Amino acid sequence: MDTAQPRDPRPRAAVVVTGSELLTGTIADANGPWLARALTGLSLQVDRIQVVGDRPDDLVDALAAAAGCALVITSGGLGPTADDLTVDCVARFAGVPVELDPATYDQVGRIVAEWARLRGNAPAGPLDPALEAGVRKQAMVPVGATVLDPVGTAPGLVLRRPGGPLIVVLPGPPGELQGMWPAVLAAPPVRALLAAVPAAAARSLRFFGLSEPVLAQTLRELDVPGSLEVTTCLRHSELEVDIRPEPGAEAAAAALADTLAARHGEQLISADGTGTDELLARALLDRDWFVATAESCTGGLVVARLVDRAGSSAYVAGGTVAYSNQAKESQLDVPAETLAAHGAVSPQVARALADGARARFGADIGIGITGVAGPDGGTAAKPVGYVCFCVTTGDGVVLARDPVLRGDRAQIRARATDLAMHLLLQVARG
Amino acid sequence: MDTAQPRDPRPRAAVVVTGSELLTGTIADANGPWLARALTGLSLQVDRIQVVGDRPDDLVDALAAAAGCALVITSGGLGPTADDLTVDCVARFAGVPVELDPATYDQVGRIVAEWARLRGNAPAGPLDPALEAGVRKQAMVPVGATVLDPVGTAPGLVLRRPGGPLIVVLPGPPGELQGMWPAVLAAPPVRALLAAVPAAAARSLRFFGLSEPVLAQTLRELDVPGSLEVTTCLRHSELEVDIRPEPGAEAAAAALADTLAARHGEQLISADGTGTDELLARALLDRDWFVATAESCTGGLVVARLVDRAGSSAYVAGGTVAYSNQAKESQLDVPAETLAAHGAVSPQVARALADGARARFGADIGIGITGVAGPDGGTAAKPVGYVCFCVTTGDGVVLARDPVLRGDRAQIRARATDLAMHLLLQVARG
Repeated sequence: MDTAQPRDPRPRAAVVVTGSELLTGTIADANGPWLARALTGLSLQVDRIQVVGDRPDDLVDALAAAAGCALVITSGGLGPTADDLTVDCVARFAGVPVELDPATYDQVGRIVAEWARLRGNAPAGPLDPALEAGVRKQAMVPVGATVLDPVGTAPGLVLRRPGGPLIVVLPGPPGELQGMWPAVLAAPPVRALLAAVPAAAARSLRFFGLSEPVLAQTLRELDVPGSLEVTTCLRHSELEVDIRPEPGAEAAAAALADTLAARHGEQLISADGTGTDELLARALLDRDWFVATAESCTGGLVVARLVDRAGSSAYVAGGTVAYSNQAKESQLDVPAETLAAHGAVSPQVARALADGARARFGADIGIGITGVAGPDGGTAAKPVGYVCFCVTTGDGVVLARDPVLRGDRAQIRARATDLAMHLLLQVARG
Repeated sequence: MDTAQPRDPRPRAAVVVTGSELLTGTIADANGPWLARALTGLSLQVDRIQVVGDRPDDLVDALAAAAGCALVITSGGLGPTADDLTVDCVARFAGVPVELDPATYDQVGRIVAEWARLRGNAPAGPLDPALEAGVRKQAMVPVGATVLDPVGTAPGLVLRRPGGPLIVVLPGPPGELQGMWPAVLAAPPVRALLAAVPAAAARSLRFFGLSEPVLAQTLRELDVPGSLEVTTCLRHSELEVDIRPEPGAEAAAAALADTLAARHGEQLISADGTGTDELLARALLDRDWFVATAESCTGGLVVARLVDRAGSSAYVAGGTVAYSNQAKESQLDVPAETLAAHGAVSPQVARALADGARARFGADIGIGITGVAGPDGGTAAKPVGYVCFCVTTGDGVVLARDPVLRGDRAQIRARATDLAMHLLLQVARG
């Protein structure tokens, strides 16, 4: 939220997302954030993301509100049914009629026929009239628009409003939208727009254990010039700090990045935007180490994070989720007397879990995690949020922590997973 | 996306989210979808979700565009720094001045002082001037507004624009926003607004294995009346169908729900909106069964889903992630000859994994999952996306599937996790 506000020379872009299901909260819009990231990466300035329902007036209003931008991207409303109204609304906004495009009609018709055959609900031959009506609707194109080939059944469009923004019309399903993005970037009107954008490389820093207020205080002391836009974001317990220079201010961005990295060096994870998970994977690969996990309260979230990355079989040996004391004994060789003497949630059991995971899976580095995720099970001595971590290695390194983490059950488990990845990274980096 | 468009008698609401970091795609807005769901549940109609940056003109424009609504909720921009501008913008929009509220000043001051002491960077005594300036800013309140107690340091506000919408001003961090929601609902102006909203209970159905086009075809055949709004949403591979009646159309909603449930009974999961995970938990508790998992390609995602729910220690015995053949043998007793004869990704190994998980953890029902998540490792016979599942129980039930799942690595793992939960439910339901 801490953002210096320079006069920004970048062209402005707006994203307009349609879909009534996004306004009931049934599902969260994924296209707005995805497009915002893509456009920011192209050095455009995203002005707004607007989500509207499948009502034509609302969509036209949203387009009109973005008339001052250089680029407007819409997602959704391209389906075969009558309530999918984006093409008509965009044509109204651009002031041009729509007409049937024969090539698009043929192309969509072939896709729909093939799809109907695969589903086994249509014979070869002419399309059923209900499907044909849908194909005809999807082949109506505003005069003068560039058609982008369908990824699903809906074609995309690129269209210029005379004197106004370039409009890119994309389908709603995120897979189709993202699949169509290379064609968007290749479309001549988009290439012409992007060719005129001044490039300015952003710097990105990652910190673990640095709070936003402390960073904000540092930024105030440093008196950041107006030519830099600094945004911060907390994700997976990491503070990501992005520094975007105006064209020509790249040296100032680099100097600020260096100063922040030096000032908060203890908490710095990376000065090039690489996050904990990727750094951990690289460190394990560098050392030719395999990792194993023994989880109780995190219930598999840590091993799932480790396996997320393609190629993880080169450094993940495996993991065990041991919820009961019996499973901790039988599957991970935690001594019954350790459990009895200290309780299942204790630094001693965390250490035995780490050693057990390492031994059982033949791994080089192991982590044990046991805690009280709540909502029940807390005591005065071991409240909800109390989590014990231990990382051990075959050559005798031991790193242990037992903080009380804040939040509800889901937050405690998420924070415990973040901290587990961070502790593994600390040890794997050596 | 299939939505009948009745004239809707519900009061309209708008959500305005501020935060420049949301427009760079650094993070996806969580508050818009959360508020949309909460407001829809209160029988309001959400008209739009708009995300704008920390620029005062953009925020005022967004408020002006929502002037026709009965309720506008803002999130974000309540921090102590100068770029957090929501209160000033809302006051401008409502046409009232802001003034220091002494009670809020004292309250925020106490919270900030306590917080500074806990962090160890301030002694007891008067606040450091930089912090005091922040407290003073956060205690500026539009004249006539109701102040909502801070959850973090920022107070919320409820304010009426003369002749216009009721405005609710909430902090940006999702935990603070959600924590303040009960106070919003208890505020007298909000209670008065909600008391006037005609209630109309929605119906919600869940299907697994039913595609949206097939459902759309059914809806077209049934000729859904305009008094019902039908929205569909695919989440965790489940198709959620919500039917919202206008007041008075509840019987039509119930009749449509019954018809859909009968027409697609094979795929029906629940007719009351309950999802697979909750149904599985209930089925396991009903039978007093414990579940254990043995995962390869899903790498802990299935056991993490099982443990997500509070109270899961009453039915989750544990799980093992066995990536290597060696781990499958040593940790789950998969016979070396089965691995050699059929390969690690095979129905035979999936079955041995299920049995091994059950035996090792002393569970009543076990699931084994082994597959090719990609991007590498696929062959002609076992392509990327080929995943073998087996569920077995102590009393001899065996349910096996080996589909080729679509998508990239992350999608294949997510779909495999969804299918695993569904197969466990099928068996646990008996």
